[in-house]
Amino acid sequence: MSSLGIVTPQSMHFKTPLRLSSGASIADYTLVYETYGTLNADRSNAVLVCHALNASHHVAGMYVGADGKKSVGWWDNMVGPGKPLDTDRFFVIGVNNLGSCFGSTGPMHPDPATGKPYGASFPVVTVEDWVRAQARLADELGIRQFAAVMGGSLGGMQALSWSMLFPDRMRHAIVIASTPKLSAQNIAFNDVARQAILTDPDFHGGDFYAHGVVPRNGLRVARMIGHITYLSDDSMAEKFARRLRNGDYQFGFGIDFEIESYLRYQGDKFSEYFDANTYLLITKALDYFDPAREHGDDLTRALAQTEARFLLVSFTTDWRFSPQRSREIVQALVNNKRKVTYAEIDAPHGHDAFLLEDPRYMNTVRAYYERIWQEIAQRRAA
Amino acid sequence: MSSLGIVTPQSMHFKTPLRLSSGASIADYTLVYETYGTLNADRSNAVLVCHALNASHHVAGMYVGADGKKSVGWWDNMVGPGKPLDTDRFFVIGVNNLGSCFGSTGPMHPDPATGKPYGASFPVVTVEDWVRAQARLADELGIRQFAAVMGGSLGGMQALSWSMLFPDRMRHAIVIASTPKLSAQNIAFNDVARQAILTDPDFHGGDFYAHGVVPRNGLRVARMIGHITYLSDDSMAEKFARRLRNGDYQFGFGIDFEIESYLRYQGDKFSEYFDANTYLLITKALDYFDPAREHGDDLTRALAQTEARFLLVSFTTDWRFSPQRSREIVQALVNNKRKVTYAEIDAPHGHDAFLLEDPRYMNTVRAYYERIWQEIAQRRAA
Repeated sequence: MSSLGIVTPQSMHFKTPLRLSSGASIADYTLVYETYGTLNADRSNAVLVCHALNASHHVAGMYVGADGKKSVGWWDNMVGPGKPLDTDRFFVIGVNNLGSCFGSTGPMHPDPATGKPYGASFPVVTVEDWVRAQARLADELGIRQFAAVMGGSLGGMQALSWSMLFPDRMRHAIVIASTPKLSAQNIAFNDVARQAILTDPDFHGGDFYAHGVVPRNGLRVARMIGHITYLSDDSMAEKFARRLRNGDYQFGFGIDFEIESYLRYQGDKFSEYFDANTYLLITKALDYFDPAREHGDDLTRALAQTEARFLLVSFTTDWRFSPQRSREIVQALVNNKRKVTYAEIDAPHGHDAFLLEDPRYMNTVRAYYERIWQEIAQRRAA
Repeated sequence: MSSLGIVTPQSMHFKTPLRLSSGASIADYTLVYETYGTLNADRSNAVLVCHALNASHHVAGMYVGADGKKSVGWWDNMVGPGKPLDTDRFFVIGVNNLGSCFGSTGPMHPDPATGKPYGASFPVVTVEDWVRAQARLADELGIRQFAAVMGGSLGGMQALSWSMLFPDRMRHAIVIASTPKLSAQNIAFNDVARQAILTDPDFHGGDFYAHGVVPRNGLRVARMIGHITYLSDDSMAEKFARRLRNGDYQFGFGIDFEIESYLRYQGDKFSEYFDANTYLLITKALDYFDPAREHGDDLTRALAQTEARFLLVSFTTDWRFSPQRSREIVQALVNNKRKVTYAEIDAPHGHDAFLLEDPRYMNTVRAYYERIWQEIAQRRAA
């Protein structure tokens, strides 16, 4: 299924406390990560891939569970041998963020201070906190400077944040389907999703672990809301239209339309594996991301500190983070005379397009990595 | 506050069973309604105003509660003496639909068969069922033919349905911010809202009345989702932007942003007065509305049976029922050589614009009623 074959997650434990944007600290933590490809001798070919809301360090390749169930990485169409981000050339790192539910330290893990799961007391983390934690992992892996830091959506925010927090530790930032900050409407959708979780009686103020339950109904509704915003009106119309599940109206509150069946299924599935506290944390990190805020709401000033070259990609039907939001970043970079490549891809799939196979999109990213690869060769020759 | 002054709801009891679209019947029911203005001698000046999701028969004028609290009708800016729909000229009827929670027979009322509240057993009703019930009310009030049937959003669907079910009982249809059918995305939002209610443990399968509780959390989330779709991205950005309630990030899950505070307040308020079963019923009526369905999905054929003249109005930033949806109706009417006036109003307020004061919008409706008024005078002179 994956041309990378079987991959294995690794983990790194950190004992030095990490000071967070909130002022709190996280004393002791583990990051789970995967790597693909080989770090070259001068350590110039490392690429960090940052994940979005419900993804993880499992970017590419395959796991085979004890039950024989296969799980392919979430960006396996992008990362692998011969793929746009070619692991025959680059050493790629995928890292799971703090607060996640896929291995790195999160709210379901014991708080060393109490021995009980953090639950609601897990500190609120920001995109910047994640980036600082990722930088420590890079230190441990001996990577001074990344050839590129790359991500889509929330992952794109991390790539952008890297370019501001560690300008000399990366040569390229690849920011896909992202935004310099959430709009009021974006925040509104996130907050409704959070309210669905927070008011689920099974949430127990975040300490549901101790009660042996999961706020499944809240998570389910949260995911359904999110999922609507990932798809475009057009792609939903094309995929589902008003198709009925059973040929005619049922005159009840079961399933009438295929779109209902699809969304409920997505919600059910998500509620079985995702952690409710993680959902709250990650949506807050999205809401809080606003690098211009400390620069008088001036994105140009915020991006003045960057040194990287940039690739930005947006998708025409993405109404969550529309092309206009990417263009704001492009404009601010141009104002700073940074080198920027910008591609606006005419794709019907809404925000989800960044995860899908689209030849123009894939070729854009492939061509950009080709350029990075040639630069590495030139630096080595110089 | 209202130029109509104090108004009083009336009610009409119907003993002949109403056969519903589902095949079920409702044996015995009451409709609550209000009237403003005076029916003229030849009964030619009656206008029916149909309500949308969370509105009622209380279209205009004012109630004063026992506690002195005033309640102004939901379209008081549109209907009243000297208003676009001028009650000095027209006899206006507002009627509360079956299944509502504002007086007409609904799920909170006793089922005559059991003596207990209908709850989940209240039959699923359609736009067409409402229209047939409204026609019976018109019979009782001695109105053979309306000068106009008018509504916005779901109310516009009723006006459109009237033009197909009772073509000779109306001279004009005024259809504002509406659609010939919901899109997959529209249905998706409705279904998430319903799921929030249906999975609230306090819903008790619809029989929460017997348990002395209300599925408040579900209703609250449902309303928050709905509310986001009524506003435009732009108007939210203008009204709230990323303004913080307390000047800085709180690093918790209380209120950070003003938009959160606003939406939660809307949700809280709604959950205190709206009935959960009514919410389910009304969203289903929205989902099921699709008059072209019985005509091979051909809207032109569906509208061939109409005789009325039409005014359609849409609003540029309405992403719930966008101008494109109104244009589909206009096109189908034009295909049938019906007389149609269409106004696309450049307004920033999204779907909610149909309830708001906008001079171009108000003047469009006013001019159209002026024309209707002159026709009435001409008919009388003839």
